Amino acid sequence: MTFAAPLTGVVPPVCTPLTEEREVDVPSLLRLVEHLVEGGVHGLFVLGSTSEAAYLTDRQRRQVVEAVVGYVGGQLPVLAGAIDMATARVLEHVAAVTAAGAQAVVVTAPFYARAAHPAEIARHYRRVAAGSPVPVLAYDIPVSVPARLPAALVLQLAAEGVLAGLKDSSGDLGGFREVVTGLRAHPETAAFSVLTGSELITDAALAVGADGAVPGLANVDPHGYVRLYRLARAGDWDGARAEQERLCALFAITRAGDPARMGAGSSALGAFKTALHLRGIIDCPATADPQIPLSHEETQQIARLLAAAELL
Amino acid sequence: MTFAAPLTGVVPPVCTPLTEEREVDVPSLLRLVEHLVEGGVHGLFVLGSTSEAAYLTDRQRRQVVEAVVGYVGGQLPVLAGAIDMATARVLEHVAAVTAAGAQAVVVTAPFYARAAHPAEIARHYRRVAAGSPVPVLAYDIPVSVPARLPAALVLQLAAEGVLAGLKDSSGDLGGFREVVTGLRAHPETAAFSVLTGSELITDAALAVGADGAVPGLANVDPHGYVRLYRLARAGDWDGARAEQERLCALFAITRAGDPARMGAGSSALGAFKTALHLRGIIDCPATADPQIPLSHEETQQIARLLAAAELL
Amino acid sequence: MTFAAPLTGVVPPVCTPLTEEREVDVPSLLRLVEHLVEGGVHGLFVLGSTSEAAYLTDRQRRQVVEAVVGYVGGQLPVLAGAIDMATARVLEHVAAVTAAGAQAVVVTAPFYARAAHPAEIARHYRRVAAGSPVPVLAYDIPVSVPARLPAALVLQLAAEGVLAGLKDSSGDLGGFREVVTGLRAHPETAAFSVLTGSELITDAALAVGADGAVPGLANVDPHGYVRLYRLARAGDWDGARAEQERLCALFAITRAGDPARMGAGSSALGAFKTALHLRGIIDCPATADPQIPLSHEETQQIARLLAAAELL
Amino acid sequence: MTFAAPLTGVVPPVCTPLTEEREVDVPSLLRLVEHLVEGGVHGLFVLGSTSEAAYLTDRQRRQVVEAVVGYVGGQLPVLAGAIDMATARVLEHVAAVTAAGAQAVVVTAPFYARAAHPAEIARHYRRVAAGSPVPVLAYDIPVSVPARLPAALVLQLAAEGVLAGLKDSSGDLGGFREVVTGLRAHPETAAFSVLTGSELITDAALAVGADGAVPGLANVDPHGYVRLYRLARAGDWDGARAEQERLCALFAITRAGDPARMGAGSSALGAFKTALHLRGIIDCPATADPQIPLSHEETQQIARLLAAAELL
Repeated sequence: MTFAAPLTGVVPPVCTPLTEEREVDVPSLLRLVEHLVEGGVHGLFVLGSTSEAAYLTDRQRRQVVEAVVGYVGGQLPVLAGAIDMATARVLEHVAAVTAAGAQAVVVTAPFYARAAHPAEIARHYRRVAAGSPVPVLAYDIPVSVPARLPAALVLQLAAEGVLAGLKDSSGDLGGFREVVTGLRAHPETAAFSVLTGSELITDAALAVGADGAVPGLANVDPHGYVRLYRLARAGDWDGARAEQERLCALFAITRAGDPARMGAGSSALGAFKTALHLRGIIDCPATADPQIPLSHEETQQIARLLAAAELL
Repeated sequence: MTFAAPLTGVVPPVCTPLTEEREVDVPSLLRLVEHLVEGGVHGLFVLGSTSEAAYLTDRQRRQVVEAVVGYVGGQLPVLAGAIDMATARVLEHVAAVTAAGAQAVVVTAPFYARAAHPAEIARHYRRVAAGSPVPVLAYDIPVSVPARLPAALVLQLAAEGVLAGLKDSSGDLGGFREVVTGLRAHPETAAFSVLTGSELITDAALAVGADGAVPGLANVDPHGYVRLYRLARAGDWDGARAEQERLCALFAITRAGDPARMGAGSSALGAFKTALHLRGIIDCPATADPQIPLSHEETQQIARLLAAAELL
Repeated sequence: MTFAAPLTGVVPPVCTPLTEEREVDVPSLLRLVEHLVEGGVHGLFVLGSTSEAAYLTDRQRRQVVEAVVGYVGGQLPVLAGAIDMATARVLEHVAAVTAAGAQAVVVTAPFYARAAHPAEIARHYRRVAAGSPVPVLAYDIPVSVPARLPAALVLQLAAEGVLAGLKDSSGDLGGFREVVTGLRAHPETAAFSVLTGSELITDAALAVGADGAVPGLANVDPHGYVRLYRLARAGDWDGARAEQERLCALFAITRAGDPARMGAGSSALGAFKTALHLRGIIDCPATADPQIPLSHEETQQIARLLAAAELL
Repeated sequence: MTFAAPLTGVVPPVCTPLTEEREVDVPSLLRLVEHLVEGGVHGLFVLGSTSEAAYLTDRQRRQVVEAVVGYVGGQLPVLAGAIDMATARVLEHVAAVTAAGAQAVVVTAPFYARAAHPAEIARHYRRVAAGSPVPVLAYDIPVSVPARLPAALVLQLAAEGVLAGLKDSSGDLGGFREVVTGLRAHPETAAFSVLTGSELITDAALAVGADGAVPGLANVDPHGYVRLYRLARAGDWDGARAEQERLCALFAITRAGDPARMGAGSSALGAFKTALHLRGIIDCPATADPQIPLSHEETQQIARLLAAAELL
């Protein structure tokens, strides 16, 4: 199943606010969605990596999709991650998130499972697409899933109608371009959506031909990414670059966590939530276990960076 | 929670026979368990990597534990994998498998989730152990989980009583030895169980001080691994080596799958199931999606190797 | 030692033509240099990865620098790789290539040597710069040197005057941008040269703020990369993208080699030399041992791609 | 060219003592060799990784081989590393070390050079062997050379007479065993030497069938490894294990360096040299640039571990 038209614009991977007890904080989640919608975003991606999907139980995942789909009520497309290790488990998530109203699903190659051969990845997507009532986007995120998605494989599955889009969080703009330009040889893929997951080279990805962007930092500053997107669409590349550089400076919040105490993930997801908390959008900056919480001093560092960006 | 005494002996990671429709084939599973028990094994490990846990839905996982625990009725210890990406999801599996009667759980570091810092891994195991009614074994399997478990971390968590054992499928015998010898400095860890996941250096791991072994190939030839274990325990290292070398030759079945058509996982798990099928123990050699099935010719190659090992 | 002004423009990493006997073919090398100079390039980089520096003996390396420096006679800057495992060996190459007239040296982090800690990399560059009579550029090429050069380290060494530039062949445009924008905080680094090694996203790197590019494919089509550079400098980003996409299509020559028979390096370097041979610029397409030669059929495939690009 | 009989026993990779100015300290080197010979070792391996070959200039490498060969005067076999990136460069080292009297050369797969395909590695070894006047041992050391040497490739090159032996520093005992047992199918490889590079599982490698060991820690305690070897050869596996465990405890010296200040290589090589200095065997503990020197406190920690091992 494919889209009628490509998804375009800014589609933030929505953070999942938690309570101190690590339960989904639905009121905070809805305030965050409201903040994003008011920021002008063009769609929402729930249950992705930035949403801590890997940390949420099935019940919590369902809560998130139901709350967000219910809130936006069709105003905006809602994509949902169906993040799991292999085909049968992914299909269960596909069923759950589409029952809750997701309009598309985002699916990685198998992980943990040793099924990283191109033939195994192709079989995985063919089976998932056959069992999905909504379009399937492939999700290339080597920081979490070692099996990469070669451009040739993505193009083949796009031509077959198995894949409706790609969310590329690989940082490899050369490979991204290969998909973008390769699609032109396949007119039947006109509605295929090529989305970049990068926060730092969104302008470059749009210049190369991305349809849209899924930047985690857009949780904190949706207006910035929407401006960037509009400048790029208007062909104002100097303006887009200036906006992008401002956002890159803001991205320094993700490095506030001391690497002696925690990994890059705790630091980055902690920073997004801390920023949202400092901005008054969510009630609690807690991240899911076993991530390490940011300290008071690290929180102050984030506050300073937000103030410098006039977001506080 | 720790064991009263270390788990010892041969504890095969039990394959999960499937039907053509990729549902759990319970009668075949019970025949496989019977075959293992008759082979003299000392425990059973269900829902590990060799069991295709990554491929099974929660319902199928439950089916497996219930069937096996029901069948063995306390004769043998049954360990169960609680394989998932991060703490909360793992705890749900812990609850499910212990409700079904598993006597210990086997848990990896987080994966997909970016939580590979030693402090994050420690927090993960502390939270999981706090929520588990049964002992927790750490599972080091770098082919599936990039985050390694450093010996110092394992020893610390053993001394704290968080971990009751280690299943080491890393192939790194030097690190394995570091755990084995390090435990001696902690008398309170006397019941800590150090198990090797290797098929190919089981004799060496036992010589180094392993309490037991969890070899996938023991599905096919439990008698061989039980003999190997007994020879090692009797100090007959030459005999153990000869038995091990015989089993290494048999392990060639795992390379029957053509690497141009499939990955090493499809080949290895396919080979175990094909061998069990050829030996008349299970009804169908199917592996879970998206693994690639072995061809007729590859099956014949496995048959020849089984015949050479006098297992057919 | 730093540059008076940044190096800018297209600085091809010059292939090293070899005879059938795998000796440097100096006449072919000089014809290649002439072809590049006529193509309008702004500098030359000899003894880089594309030059097969790793495969050339010290005598052959010297031959290359002497021939090229002698030929260009100061018309264009000539940079030379000083590619070796650790500090003392690198310094010997620095002495050799500068004696032969190279105006700058290009140096990686240590490799083979286990010295990949940032403190070790910093010490390496400080020692090399202290012993070099010409400016030192850092070379980030993870496909050959696993130790990455973090942006913060590059910026620090730039601010200290240790590094005069960066050749980034990492493909990581986000990290590249971090260097480019980070330099602005250090006015003393005004002449620092940031060069991209990418063939496929040269336009994006220039848009982000690269001073120049070092694309291997410019051996085959220097005019194309010079046009791309000029369009980018003129702010004609649509024109630059169109030229880039044409060059990306041409880059398909690097995949002509059958992956069942050879690695990506044999295929890519073989393709550059085969294309230069087919275009009549060099006498022999041989690559250095132990690379695998391209077959007749693979050569025909390259000829077709060159013809499609109107380069044959 | 192959050996008349396999190399057996303990063949330490000889450290290269340096002066404060980082020149080879020949008198210290000869005292170290004397210490090893008195310790009962069966051969010497110079210019390996532990010898800091990657850090030494060609002149320094020559100095080392000449000094050691001259000193031992044929009493013991002297193997020399010919460590470089690709075939032609390796062949120059082969010529240099054999001119200086080395009786065998030790050669890795290509590195830096992108030539890691099995066909490229095979071509490399065939070319090197064809140009070598002495037997060639393959060197598998993934910590320095990412291209691994698959057992099947080693066995094929052994059967062809290209390789005379293997030094395996991979830590992968399963793969090591595959080589050992695979050789039995090739009677023409009777003199092939299988050596383990591991310090920590030397007993296990000998039990599996290694002909000998090349442990870096034998610089510090040659008597220990010689005892271990003799116990293993006598079939006293309990005694061998006890000796091995003692040596494993001593190996803790390699972790004295603070990982916040330096990498594992600076720490390990610094520890070997510091121990030799503390034991009065070499004049200066300096390691080659850019390695980080150990602090006074780290040196004291090594002294304590030596004292505990009754080596001080």
